[in-house]
Amino acid sequence: MLPRRSVHALSAAGKHALICSPCAPLQPTLRRTRSSSMAGNDALARRGKVLTVDTMNANVKKVEYAVRGPIVQRAVQIEKELKEGVKKPFNEVIKANIGDAHAMGQQPITFFRQVLALCSYPELLDDNKFPEDAKNRARRILKACGGSSIGAYTASQGIDCVRIDVARYIERRDGGISCDPDNIYLTTGASDGIVTILKLLTAGEGRTRTGVMISIPQYPLYSAAIAELGAVQINYYLNEEKCWSLDISELQRSLDAARQYCNPRVLCIINPGNPTGQVQSRQCIEDVIRFAAKERLFLMADEVYQDNVYAEGCAFHSFKKVLFEMGPEFSSTVELASFHSTSKCYMGECGLRGGYMEVINMDPEVKAQLTKLVSVRLCPPVPGQTLMGLVTNSPQPGEPSYAQFITERTATLNDLAQKAKLTEEILNTVPGIRCNPVQGAMYSFPQITLPERAIKEAKAKGQVPDMFYCMKLLEETGICLVPGSGFGQKEGTYHFRMTILPPTDKLKIMLDKLKEFHQRFTQQYS
Amino acid sequence: MLPRRSVHALSAAGKHALICSPCAPLQPTLRRTRSSSMAGNDALARRGKVLTVDTMNANVKKVEYAVRGPIVQRAVQIEKELKEGVKKPFNEVIKANIGDAHAMGQQPITFFRQVLALCSYPELLDDNKFPEDAKNRARRILKACGGSSIGAYTASQGIDCVRIDVARYIERRDGGISCDPDNIYLTTGASDGIVTILKLLTAGEGRTRTGVMISIPQYPLYSAAIAELGAVQINYYLNEEKCWSLDISELQRSLDAARQYCNPRVLCIINPGNPTGQVQSRQCIEDVIRFAAKERLFLMADEVYQDNVYAEGCAFHSFKKVLFEMGPEFSSTVELASFHSTSKCYMGECGLRGGYMEVINMDPEVKAQLTKLVSVRLCPPVPGQTLMGLVTNSPQPGEPSYAQFITERTATLNDLAQKAKLTEEILNTVPGIRCNPVQGAMYSFPQITLPERAIKEAKAKGQVPDMFYCMKLLEETGICLVPGSGFGQKEGTYHFRMTILPPTDKLKIMLDKLKEFHQRFTQQYS
Repeated sequence: MLPRRSVHALSAAGKHALICSPCAPLQPTLRRTRSSSMAGNDALARRGKVLTVDTMNANVKKVEYAVRGPIVQRAVQIEKELKEGVKKPFNEVIKANIGDAHAMGQQPITFFRQVLALCSYPELLDDNKFPEDAKNRARRILKACGGSSIGAYTASQGIDCVRIDVARYIERRDGGISCDPDNIYLTTGASDGIVTILKLLTAGEGRTRTGVMISIPQYPLYSAAIAELGAVQINYYLNEEKCWSLDISELQRSLDAARQYCNPRVLCIINPGNPTGQVQSRQCIEDVIRFAAKERLFLMADEVYQDNVYAEGCAFHSFKKVLFEMGPEFSSTVELASFHSTSKCYMGECGLRGGYMEVINMDPEVKAQLTKLVSVRLCPPVPGQTLMGLVTNSPQPGEPSYAQFITERTATLNDLAQKAKLTEEILNTVPGIRCNPVQGAMYSFPQITLPERAIKEAKAKGQVPDMFYCMKLLEETGICLVPGSGFGQKEGTYHFRMTILPPTDKLKIMLDKLKEFHQRFTQQYS
Repeated sequence: MLPRRSVHALSAAGKHALICSPCAPLQPTLRRTRSSSMAGNDALARRGKVLTVDTMNANVKKVEYAVRGPIVQRAVQIEKELKEGVKKPFNEVIKANIGDAHAMGQQPITFFRQVLALCSYPELLDDNKFPEDAKNRARRILKACGGSSIGAYTASQGIDCVRIDVARYIERRDGGISCDPDNIYLTTGASDGIVTILKLLTAGEGRTRTGVMISIPQYPLYSAAIAELGAVQINYYLNEEKCWSLDISELQRSLDAARQYCNPRVLCIINPGNPTGQVQSRQCIEDVIRFAAKERLFLMADEVYQDNVYAEGCAFHSFKKVLFEMGPEFSSTVELASFHSTSKCYMGECGLRGGYMEVINMDPEVKAQLTKLVSVRLCPPVPGQTLMGLVTNSPQPGEPSYAQFITERTATLNDLAQKAKLTEEILNTVPGIRCNPVQGAMYSFPQITLPERAIKEAKAKGQVPDMFYCMKLLEETGICLVPGSGFGQKEGTYHFRMTILPPTDKLKIMLDKLKEFHQRFTQQYS
């Protein structure tokens, strides 16, 4: 590293220092003296900001995103304190708050990274270190890029050949049901697609405002996007007693109530579930589709965990497949957008921000509006598009990378399945913690019993009780979880979300520490 | 390539086919017969869509983005026709509509791509083909990533060490004026940052609605974002007679008029100018800052072309630097957000979607809201973050890649400077075309004189006259430009935006063809 000018360390406060250029640096005191001698400008200086919390976008203020909320900010702080040598009853913070697989040690798929390297630096195409199938994939992507460079903009909807790969993948996944690449939009992670579709759907004012049905518990991207767009959040509750399953009667109750105060138009489903880890049965999906058809709801199916199904007897059924198997009276009418991502499953490539959405039965005029809307942001990041193309066009039997690809993928998925089981088992040995089977996805969402006295103390401190619990856990053990209140839960119940991602040995230690903590906490407040 | 199931070709229409899975495919006629026998469901099928242009987000409908608008869609169509063998009076479409450097043959910087390859596939760190400085940069980025993988999420504000690199870069650029890395937010291209800041600033209703001052001509991201957010667009006109300079009196006129119908809170400046190519003088920037201070406007400085300054006597002055040189009465009060990108300058890495913004004097509570807001989207793409880090921490004297880096960067910038000059010169030889000097950025924005009869014919066809002109140009020559109306222009004047990016030989041919076309067009309609 070369010697450089000194620079301020990253600080939490928004302050910044003054001039340190040709002229001598001004001291803050001097500065104040100077400016107080200039009446007009001083008035200026004292006048408030143009942009304050009182004058900013009110919808943005309502946005909450617990997965990276206050508890995570405190975790980052604690990490810094540890580095600075502050003594703690633990040596490291375990971030089990977010589905960030690589950060937890999961290894990327070699083939994917080889192709990314080849696309980034095409001189490597002459290197015999890389297998031919990786080179072929890279050549195909580069040929599809302007100037054969991943540095060129692509079509806003995404690279044509990647969208064809995605369509082929969907057809294979869904037993041959046809998929038109023109219905595929590549996105910057699934979040981008979800927000875009919600944006199209948000309209009306007051009682005609668009209502969006989301599960409780939910992934807080939904509530955040709904708040930001000024749409109306409609809660339907998953049935914790029945392994977080979805009851149509609850959908109906929730919808009927919402019709009194808004215009419900969208039904969002997360399957496999986040944070709840349930995998929906084919029957349930069919019932949901029937419900959406009857009640005229636009269906949004968040299927980013489609490869993460662990429990025996469970299988992933895509909404698209079930819709088309239900026959044309449904498949030609129900409007559906389905979302996928490179961030989850066995890939875990969160940092690449790759994803796609498939839109079904979208009005062609609306589709034109969608295409226009995404064009304003030019295009999704090309490495993420490339990766989405690789996930959907992975090495095939007979190709040189096939064996290694299958080995790596299988190892990762088996490991996740074991950790899902382990998490459930250990948690359920703790009195006061009750954990449903982690059928899929990457999280457990156990219910915790909190002593009355703990609830009272939390409330006295102005904290939600499960936030109080998780904060204490973090301070005492270094384990960073997200309180259930960040996802929503039935009044009077408390939960946390914990990823199953840490390496098995670490996961075991973490679960043991958690067990100990819970017992101590319960004792302390009983 | 392996044999695959057939898939529908990419089609413009949104149609998709029916089931082609285990059971025999249903014919559309059969389908209709079947469903018409089911009274209830048939009613369902006939009922309209949930989401139509009449029921969708009205703000989204107002969004326009000419850079990828109808003319570009037609250009893509023509490209397909050419591939299919349709005879045209030209062999290829030249896309001079968008600042897409690599697509026009500009070469990426070798060093940047080496580091990206190393980060993508760290096994290459053992390869002696890569220079040590590239390896060091890659190691530093990987160390900052969770699990040493660019596949991990980063902090939502961006990787710490990249933000430090950005801050150091800004300090060097601005002659030592201090920059706090905590004021740096990495973004998904500059567009992402611009929309985010506009989002924070949008509030109020009716006459209290946030007004955003933008130059006319402008880069249509601004008008698009303002429309989508439901803010009020306030136009101030650049002075074409004075080389597209900015007059404070015009700012004042525009602002005073706007105060009658909205709450003007933001002043957006693009410097160097897009689409107009002017470079603002230091004096002008000082005047703008004084104006913003006096009128209490939040300043947004779009400085993505900061390395693209070609004209003699012109230099890039950052708003940040000028603000701080004006003394604390300004530097401690005026709120400023400045934007940069990896897409322009000598890098041209549009596909990576890298960028940053620096916020100055932002209210700390608002800053906390900003940090929360960006956390919902998790993080900007890590390859783009990496690239932003490399741009701001490029090879230094003494490092092995320094010489090649300087050679490549200089060649690209010199080439652009020559093409800027060439474009201006050739365009100004054409009677009826008047082109201001392209002092900076990547575009010329000449005024064109259109014969009355052409204007009448365009209007009869319901087309804006310069769209009519550009469409005809595209059909007859294959040259794709963007009509001036897509950027805004003074009533009764007509322009087009043309990038200076094609390789010199191609640029010459293009300009000659354009000259010929303009003469033919003028003759035809005179």
